[in-house]
Amino acid sequence: MNVYIRAVAERLASQGVEVDLFTRCRGHGSPDVQEIVPGARLITVRAGPYAPVPKADLPRYVPEFLGGVLRRAELEGRGYDVVHTHYWLSGWVGRSAKEIWRVPLVASFHTLGKVKNYALARGERPESHARMAGEARVIADADRILAPTPAEAAQLVGLYRADPEAIRIVPPGVDHTIFVPQPKEQARARLHLDTDMCLALYVGRLQPHKGPDVAVRTLAEAVALDPGRCLVLAIVGGPSGSSHGEEVARLLDLASALDVGDRVMLFPPQPQRRLADFYAAADAVLVPSRSESFGLVALESQACGTPVIAAAVGGLRFVVQDGRTGFLVEGHDPGDHAEKLLAVLRDRELARRMGEEGARQALRFTWDATASELLSVYRELLDGPASTAKLGA
Amino acid sequence: MNVYIRAVAERLASQGVEVDLFTRCRGHGSPDVQEIVPGARLITVRAGPYAPVPKADLPRYVPEFLGGVLRRAELEGRGYDVVHTHYWLSGWVGRSAKEIWRVPLVASFHTLGKVKNYALARGERPESHARMAGEARVIADADRILAPTPAEAAQLVGLYRADPEAIRIVPPGVDHTIFVPQPKEQARARLHLDTDMCLALYVGRLQPHKGPDVAVRTLAEAVALDPGRCLVLAIVGGPSGSSHGEEVARLLDLASALDVGDRVMLFPPQPQRRLADFYAAADAVLVPSRSESFGLVALESQACGTPVIAAAVGGLRFVVQDGRTGFLVEGHDPGDHAEKLLAVLRDRELARRMGEEGARQALRFTWDATASELLSVYRELLDGPASTAKLGA
Repeated sequence: MNVYIRAVAERLASQGVEVDLFTRCRGHGSPDVQEIVPGARLITVRAGPYAPVPKADLPRYVPEFLGGVLRRAELEGRGYDVVHTHYWLSGWVGRSAKEIWRVPLVASFHTLGKVKNYALARGERPESHARMAGEARVIADADRILAPTPAEAAQLVGLYRADPEAIRIVPPGVDHTIFVPQPKEQARARLHLDTDMCLALYVGRLQPHKGPDVAVRTLAEAVALDPGRCLVLAIVGGPSGSSHGEEVARLLDLASALDVGDRVMLFPPQPQRRLADFYAAADAVLVPSRSESFGLVALESQACGTPVIAAAVGGLRFVVQDGRTGFLVEGHDPGDHAEKLLAVLRDRELARRMGEEGARQALRFTWDATASELLSVYRELLDGPASTAKLGA
Repeated sequence: MNVYIRAVAERLASQGVEVDLFTRCRGHGSPDVQEIVPGARLITVRAGPYAPVPKADLPRYVPEFLGGVLRRAELEGRGYDVVHTHYWLSGWVGRSAKEIWRVPLVASFHTLGKVKNYALARGERPESHARMAGEARVIADADRILAPTPAEAAQLVGLYRADPEAIRIVPPGVDHTIFVPQPKEQARARLHLDTDMCLALYVGRLQPHKGPDVAVRTLAEAVALDPGRCLVLAIVGGPSGSSHGEEVARLLDLASALDVGDRVMLFPPQPQRRLADFYAAADAVLVPSRSESFGLVALESQACGTPVIAAAVGGLRFVVQDGRTGFLVEGHDPGDHAEKLLAVLRDRELARRMGEEGARQALRFTWDATASELLSVYRELLDGPASTAKLGA
């Protein structure tokens, strides 16, 4: 999410659009204004404690956040032409800002509560009714609703009764200066990993919805199916805020219980360039999410020339081309995922072809294109061509 | 703990002592009796749910556990000559068994609540009053109290008013068929790690008391002091039952916050042989515990010929010889630990000498010796030489 917003803000700014990003102050310092690049600023606003708060507690700080945004805009003597909100809570702030500032509202959700709830992992807590009601209100009031794929556009209409006329499809991009194919040996050397093993990779938050348990079970199934193969699973990702590490604990226990504790390596969240090394170092990337609005991990992996074994859900159906850039697997049966993983590991020529095709396909997705498409959505709303537009995101 | 009890039971059995180990049934199957080796059995007894339960809830199941032990002994028509309990809760069971069976009680604690509470990590929850009162009662009633080091013997007397005459010092051992020096390159290859980096290692439960956060901070300090060095920290260990993974989450966040997320690798708990590979692969092992009854990790590391940087607490003062097998560091300041870590990493000759000396010293500790010493404690109590003794542990 932060990658998305930062990438887009930078490129909008470089196209002459002034961008202010508003976010809740969760760190140690006091709220302030910070230039990201000339033309784009990050403004932290006080709302609740200057510390991370549990996701479930965030709604109560929305009014304070709105107040902070309005005060800051007044203080700066700044007006905005468009408000673009990301995630449902800021959508609520955007609805009020739209009324007070009399500007159009563009809403992106990145994930939708109802979609998530239809695909809950076992034991996973459903998204709140408040969230889904909130999403519905934002969707009803927004002038434009953005979806990353046609599938999500259909969900917005089918599940939330969104006005199809208000929806625009704008996929995210990938930074092709960072996520590029690199020689596997060199990437592994930079990660201090040897070249003698088959390496499967999971990247993402360690929360049940993303299916890291399916990745570990897939490893165990693949080992059972092909015991002679030296197969290791690298997991790159931090615990999700709301689980307090429970999922990490479960994963470590699961690996031991399935007797693959000696084949799992866990790495904290990595900086972008190093993440690209992980993709390049891997023989295949597992994306067994329960639902996925887009599937940036799959796209980044393909950009690095590594085949993806993904669950056939949501945006992954759009990003991964079954049999061409990787495999789409129906459902979350580890045996099915393991079979496709082994298909890639056993056939080097197939893996090479998939990697090349994935890298070629990934070139279609750039942050420049995303920013340009966003800009044309804003321009539509401003009723005619504008050379610059001020933007509160 | 399980390593200890299993190793001792096997060796006692091989010396002709019949051993029954009683433990709470926490798994899926039903309670049963299982032969570990001829002469040693593991008996699982129903007490509370057939599932792991939080440590804090265990005391309530003690009476049921005692009932189960007594019933099982009757069912088997089995009498015991000595009861040897491990950890304070089984000590409570042992006190009753001693009275009912009229046999002597030997008590081992492995950790002591008061010692732990004197050295709490920041934010760590103190051990309960119930535990400390319970320990005191077991110490008062036991015929023999075992301590692994003279330091713990002194703590038993000083903090719990144990009768010095009842204390025997019996250190644990190490399996020298597994924990032996091996060429670093080969050990790293088996772990799929390259040989171009300096590798620091932390092994143990991920709980604040063991100081894994100090290990991560030590890494960050060492990187700051010697930025050109390619230094990586491998963490091997599972979350502790009571923290539900919170500590793992904190460690991953801490690594990112200190900007060493790209230098940390986390591995689930490993089988013994593979653990030996980790020790052999490492350039130094960090043991920054807040307190430590003995310090088996330090001993295992030294047995594998790898120098130890340890906090100068409890049993670590006994296991690690400062300047000879590693370094003892006063306190938990990461800067101090980092300085000693770098001293080892920078001076290959020093590291080699320390490794050799550690391996030589470690040979003094064997499970055979531990079992023999236990047996002589039991014999003392049985008032004269006995060729075999039945033992409920």
